[in-house]
Amino acid sequence: MKEVKLCIVGFGNIGRGLAAVLDEKQDLLRRRHGLKLTVVAVAEKDGSLVNERGVDLSRALKTQFSSCPEYSSMKTLDVIKSCNADMVVELTPGNMKNGEPGLSHILRSLECGMHVVTSNKAPLALKYREIMDCARKAGREVRFEATVGGAIPLINLYRGTLQANEVRNIYGILNGTTNFILSKMAEECVDFRIALKEAQELGLAESDYSYDVDGIDSAVKVVILANALMGRSVSLKDVRVVGIRDITYETVELARKHNSVIKLVGDVNELEVSPRIIPQNHPLNISGALNAVMLDTDVAGDITITGVGAGPRETSSSVLSDIIDLAIKV
Amino acid sequence: MKEVKLCIVGFGNIGRGLAAVLDEKQDLLRRRHGLKLTVVAVAEKDGSLVNERGVDLSRALKTQFSSCPEYSSMKTLDVIKSCNADMVVELTPGNMKNGEPGLSHILRSLECGMHVVTSNKAPLALKYREIMDCARKAGREVRFEATVGGAIPLINLYRGTLQANEVRNIYGILNGTTNFILSKMAEECVDFRIALKEAQELGLAESDYSYDVDGIDSAVKVVILANALMGRSVSLKDVRVVGIRDITYETVELARKHNSVIKLVGDVNELEVSPRIIPQNHPLNISGALNAVMLDTDVAGDITITGVGAGPRETSSSVLSDIIDLAIKV
Repeated sequence: MKEVKLCIVGFGNIGRGLAAVLDEKQDLLRRRHGLKLTVVAVAEKDGSLVNERGVDLSRALKTQFSSCPEYSSMKTLDVIKSCNADMVVELTPGNMKNGEPGLSHILRSLECGMHVVTSNKAPLALKYREIMDCARKAGREVRFEATVGGAIPLINLYRGTLQANEVRNIYGILNGTTNFILSKMAEECVDFRIALKEAQELGLAESDYSYDVDGIDSAVKVVILANALMGRSVSLKDVRVVGIRDITYETVELARKHNSVIKLVGDVNELEVSPRIIPQNHPLNISGALNAVMLDTDVAGDITITGVGAGPRETSSSVLSDIIDLAIKV
Repeated sequence: MKEVKLCIVGFGNIGRGLAAVLDEKQDLLRRRHGLKLTVVAVAEKDGSLVNERGVDLSRALKTQFSSCPEYSSMKTLDVIKSCNADMVVELTPGNMKNGEPGLSHILRSLECGMHVVTSNKAPLALKYREIMDCARKAGREVRFEATVGGAIPLINLYRGTLQANEVRNIYGILNGTTNFILSKMAEECVDFRIALKEAQELGLAESDYSYDVDGIDSAVKVVILANALMGRSVSLKDVRVVGIRDITYETVELARKHNSVIKLVGDVNELEVSPRIIPQNHPLNISGALNAVMLDTDVAGDITITGVGAGPRETSSSVLSDIIDLAIKV
């Protein structure tokens, strides 16, 4: 049995989702991978839980940090420095202004000699080269499967199982909220506003829905894929972005008459996010809040992978997959 | 640079496809994986090419074996024994009567201490436990990504990138010929016979089309997935099989009126291959000769992967992926 120590940074929806899955999966990790993952610290902006023999995750999920015996008022960067973990799991919310505080968490973790797993898109979209340079100098790895496509193992599919291929392009539906809205408009013959309202009622769209419907979220993922998988060096301003706000029901209906649907597609080669007309029987025509990504490869042909693009539990599948990969190497 | 020696057994469509891709990918293998794959023997039932410094694959693709200076009349089992390869790539046609000659090739290779990569479904469907026992005793591995789903990296997706998940079921479209026929019937409003004829004209269906349209090919894949991934110990007779021969155009049209399509679905948990009604916007509703497989997982939710299910070049992507994985371990 190999013990690997984790420090979880960020204990919102994603962090709590991971804690629950880690708790649930202890047996599987032991049995299938010979691993014991011990969370030695959970750091939040209001305080932290620190215990080198393992934070009690089920209690952390049920009670306030401040009422736990493991509570510490230490700041996150100090927790990272002092926690003696093998790996930091950075799960704070994204901030597309400057990538903070996630960016500092990631860089500090690498400087302290720890691997990093993150679900935080902003630091990667804004500072990919800087982060990777830092990782190289530290001789450590940064893994980020959860930043694109939620539960879909896209990055590891690309790197691991299609390793004989040159991937010529990556494109697809990278945002579940807009896919839900467009599917709703097509299937229930309703206008954008009504579909958006339903997405909000179901918790799929924020009250500030611009980030999703104007295509920014998809564009951020295009930037990450371009830099991480396609060897580009681009930033958000290099991506042409058109959202779905101006798509009327009439347009959707016109597409339907031509046996087609309208989907918001991110295209890595073209550095473009825009509504595209897709034939009804195309692998990218998937309904609801799912994501679907096509890899255009030189030997395998087109490979499409579809799955849940968000959600704390589903995202944990990708985060934990990265953790296991790195834990085996530690 | 690490040199790994291969012996290719079988030089029909799949073997020739692999030889062409190996020739094309030498640079990528060197650059990306630090590997030099040297084919020290190519064995066919009519004779072999043997050269410990590397068979000239581009010449082998262009001329008769018997006119090559590397020609040997040695029998395949003797070539396997004497070729001194690290790995045998078994690509002979399947034979569901007794798995031969592929079964003997695989067992002999393992007994001689070599890893095996195969695209041959029959030995795995008929003698999975025997093959795996032999591999365990020999301390060697048998990899078979190409046996299910052609270019789709299904088995490695399951084993590698969803490793935090329990996969509760695997089901989907496992045969491209029947998918082509059913898609044609739905899209062009034609009857089974006409769609079958077109599949034959395009080379998608054999003159003896029973193996595909009666669901046997899908059932063989269900058996492989059940034994290899779901821990079962089943054989072909355990699978209930209903093919698509009796599906009329009227049935397809009735499904369409209910916004649905009919697909031949293999279901690993149910050990069943049968035509099923699928909603039009379901991820398994893919058109043409593609395959699509859903993994029902406990953390990631449903993950669907779609791609080309056959073809010598596309299948080589899976074969070469297995070869690279094993070559790194040799």
